[in-house]
Amino acid sequence: MKFKLGCKLDYDINSDSTFIFNIRVIENDYQQIIRQSLNIKPVRQREDYFEDRTNSYFRLIAPEGKLSIDYQATVELKHHAHNTKEIQEISPAKIPLDVVPYLYPSRYCQSDRLMKLAQDEFGNCRPGYAKVKAVCDWIYHKISYISGSTDSHTSAYDTATERAGVCRDFAHLGIAFCRALGIPARFVSAYAWQLDPPDFHACFEAYLDDRWYLFDATRLAPTNGLVRIGTGRDAADTAFATVFGSVVLNNMDVYIEKIGERSEESEANTAYANIST
Amino acid sequence: MKFKLGCKLDYDINSDSTFIFNIRVIENDYQQIIRQSLNIKPVRQREDYFEDRTNSYFRLIAPEGKLSIDYQATVELKHHAHNTKEIQEISPAKIPLDVVPYLYPSRYCQSDRLMKLAQDEFGNCRPGYAKVKAVCDWIYHKISYISGSTDSHTSAYDTATERAGVCRDFAHLGIAFCRALGIPARFVSAYAWQLDPPDFHACFEAYLDDRWYLFDATRLAPTNGLVRIGTGRDAADTAFATVFGSVVLNNMDVYIEKIGERSEESEANTAYANIST
Amino acid sequence: MKFKLGCKLDYDINSDSTFIFNIRVIENDYQQIIRQSLNIKPVRQREDYFEDRTNSYFRLIAPEGKLSIDYQATVELKHHAHNTKEIQEISPAKIPLDVVPYLYPSRYCQSDRLMKLAQDEFGNCRPGYAKVKAVCDWIYHKISYISGSTDSHTSAYDTATERAGVCRDFAHLGIAFCRALGIPARFVSAYAWQLDPPDFHACFEAYLDDRWYLFDATRLAPTNGLVRIGTGRDAADTAFATVFGSVVLNNMDVYIEKIGERSEESEANTAYANIST
Amino acid sequence: MKFKLGCKLDYDINSDSTFIFNIRVIENDYQQIIRQSLNIKPVRQREDYFEDRTNSYFRLIAPEGKLSIDYQATVELKHHAHNTKEIQEISPAKIPLDVVPYLYPSRYCQSDRLMKLAQDEFGNCRPGYAKVKAVCDWIYHKISYISGSTDSHTSAYDTATERAGVCRDFAHLGIAFCRALGIPARFVSAYAWQLDPPDFHACFEAYLDDRWYLFDATRLAPTNGLVRIGTGRDAADTAFATVFGSVVLNNMDVYIEKIGERSEESEANTAYANIST
Repeated sequence: MKFKLGCKLDYDINSDSTFIFNIRVIENDYQQIIRQSLNIKPVRQREDYFEDRTNSYFRLIAPEGKLSIDYQATVELKHHAHNTKEIQEISPAKIPLDVVPYLYPSRYCQSDRLMKLAQDEFGNCRPGYAKVKAVCDWIYHKISYISGSTDSHTSAYDTATERAGVCRDFAHLGIAFCRALGIPARFVSAYAWQLDPPDFHACFEAYLDDRWYLFDATRLAPTNGLVRIGTGRDAADTAFATVFGSVVLNNMDVYIEKIGERSEESEANTAYANIST
Repeated sequence: MKFKLGCKLDYDINSDSTFIFNIRVIENDYQQIIRQSLNIKPVRQREDYFEDRTNSYFRLIAPEGKLSIDYQATVELKHHAHNTKEIQEISPAKIPLDVVPYLYPSRYCQSDRLMKLAQDEFGNCRPGYAKVKAVCDWIYHKISYISGSTDSHTSAYDTATERAGVCRDFAHLGIAFCRALGIPARFVSAYAWQLDPPDFHACFEAYLDDRWYLFDATRLAPTNGLVRIGTGRDAADTAFATVFGSVVLNNMDVYIEKIGERSEESEANTAYANIST
Repeated sequence: MKFKLGCKLDYDINSDSTFIFNIRVIENDYQQIIRQSLNIKPVRQREDYFEDRTNSYFRLIAPEGKLSIDYQATVELKHHAHNTKEIQEISPAKIPLDVVPYLYPSRYCQSDRLMKLAQDEFGNCRPGYAKVKAVCDWIYHKISYISGSTDSHTSAYDTATERAGVCRDFAHLGIAFCRALGIPARFVSAYAWQLDPPDFHACFEAYLDDRWYLFDATRLAPTNGLVRIGTGRDAADTAFATVFGSVVLNNMDVYIEKIGERSEESEANTAYANIST
Repeated sequence: MKFKLGCKLDYDINSDSTFIFNIRVIENDYQQIIRQSLNIKPVRQREDYFEDRTNSYFRLIAPEGKLSIDYQATVELKHHAHNTKEIQEISPAKIPLDVVPYLYPSRYCQSDRLMKLAQDEFGNCRPGYAKVKAVCDWIYHKISYISGSTDSHTSAYDTATERAGVCRDFAHLGIAFCRALGIPARFVSAYAWQLDPPDFHACFEAYLDDRWYLFDATRLAPTNGLVRIGTGRDAADTAFATVFGSVVLNNMDVYIEKIGERSEESEANTAYANIST
């Protein structure tokens, strides 16, 4: 499927500030950028930094005044789709060693403190895709999606008890449970087709068999319509903007629409991976 | 039923220390002290303080050296037993105002942070005794009783997520859930018949209809064999000993046995209250 | 000094609700109520509950619609003023046993977790009034008073690290430090003369010598102009309104002004107690 | 300086288990491995994984029975030594983008929650090496080194308040403060010459000017005698052994001694970096 997407960000800057943005989609075997543009007004020099197929940062320094960022892209997704029933868990003996760090606890995903809860709730689920699916179902049914209910300090440990949050909190809890179950998991920020209202979205992926599969416990958008921006241990790694200085975000527009006739329903019992290992 | 019970505590005292003990059983309409003795060696002057039918503290000051406390009592319990099906919840409009503070969060029972979890899990349970019973069943099934798994800083907020604890943690979580559901609840320390191994025990009571009913989510001892020592908002109020100074508890023996032929099975669908309001 | 004070509260009530208010001043040897009035519109039946010289609660049930509370009082304060240099700490051996519970940790004052910090920072301060003064100075200099920086879950443990809060947080931290130092301490809600903007105020008192002395680490209002409403272990006990139901507080006015010529400067080296033990 | 070092680990394995070890020293421009050996008994196949000059993991699978790991190395350190007075901070505009993630909060270093404390305590310190030194001095003076006082869940947020910990806690707090001050910082595990008793040691490094400089707030061993094992965001990344299975560590010996005549005092006003960017 093809998507046209983008975002527009307008800032008031009170004094010289440095921005690190992570708003561009990344390119990999499953996600092709057909065209993209990035307009910065007033024009500023930009420093690009591409982390190996996971993040496409850029940094710029802006003086007092206005700053406007206008990003547009056309992207084609060709997912690796797989029958969920065949997707297996792999033992710690076989997890690639560069994937192992995604088993460790991180700022917002304190898997070390959720070990027993995860074992009690999911220890008897069928291993593999079904177990991660059970984690997502639990979250979907137990956690209420309430805008504004959490803030930038909220972590999976809180959400497990306070039972409310937004997409980022749902992702954090999914990641923390997976890690506690011995399944590597990580955070994904994305443009999400059909998300309403449109916004940057957060979901997560779990490492099963030989690749990362996408999961979205919020059920707010189909996983095969997620266009990946950034990837990291948790939200701390993938903020759409990290700002050093005194600025005000006046306006933010995020959009994504499907283009062309071709459409694919997100099918039952199908898992989508859009990154290879 | 009649019980013979007591405890023996042996301390090494490194320097002048002050002790506040809360090891004596209290007396009320349902709990009659037939005889009791308290031997302190070496003999020390003792200051008694009886909080209105809830705690029977005594304080003593001891110099460097040994201190031995030997408490014995014979107690008769005449519970107020009631058919659980008839025990109703009362609305906030009718809770006696001196009972209202037991709706407020306390150090180890942060009901304010467990509101949504409590509503989600128990909001649809039948009001009254059945709801508190559902809380106890949840705790019994979800929390593992593991000696040494927690410490004096562990609170209900932790236990809800970490899912392990001892009797005091079970009681704290029960209290926190009840308060979050609008049911006054408080902490009870007790000599517990048939508790194995013998130790000071913790349980809780909830205010239903017109009185406090006993609950024990651990299921380690029958509620009609609990002989009450202290009552408070949580464990912070009812420590068996609060010590100011440098001492070592060398030995602690706690015992309780039933005396006389008469015995009463703790019956199904029967609730026990051993304090009037 | 004499004060005229009061508050006006306007609610929209969505469905039958129960209110427990704690807005009336209490009366004791040092605080005389010359006259007071309480108007409730529409007229509702009111249930009064006076806790022994510490809180003057009233409860009422209101149906869907409007509710307006108008409280006014004229109060005379005759403080027990004392030279701060002569105010001593008392040993745990001599603290009255009914005061001892104010040494225990509570929901918002987790003194058990601040033991070492309190000892490190204040362990070498001169015992007595000077030590509690040092606690208040530390709080005043280290914690920023920032409206809206905290919420109803914020506790002393958080404030010690996050270093920002409002009057209630300042009071909680002061209480927690005192308890950690072996000094009984408790929360006081008050009408505060010269507080700008006017609002319900929170401060704390510490038990020294033979009575409770007032402290206000915010330095926002003179301690000899504080007219006491409620007293408790922490803010959980002294909310100006506890509401069971669905209501909106539309408007709240709080005021206090001095009447008559007679005025007393809050003097250096003078401590004020307005409750006897 | 040259060092001979190593460790010996003896395990009892209850059932098939997977180990990921991070005990070997890494090699970089400043740390040359002259020789090293790794003996595993009984002999097991080993999978090596070298993260780019930061960690040298190896994984092995062991069946029920005994497992013994014997690692030995001879290492020469040629530090980049620099006059501390000349070491400057760099602005966020110039921090290399691959270093930026070390500004983000991590599991044990919640810099996002320590922003104000860090600014209040260190905001006015001279920028550069002096500021990180001030952080270390604060930690050294305020936090007590107490073996056994913390566990694997303890984080910088706890240590800031509870004021006690071991080397790992000292490092976490140093890292969290640096990040909160806008200085990238990361965790280093090491063999530490003159550490008594010998053990794996933890310290941290901060990114200043154009490289990572070592800091050790514990003052337990000279920084120019630290031989680096692993590097990561915090202790979650650098455990000496991550075990999947049921095993008991029966014995652990860690040692390091200087060889050859040549010795270098750790000099005042000298900073040591042993990794280039």
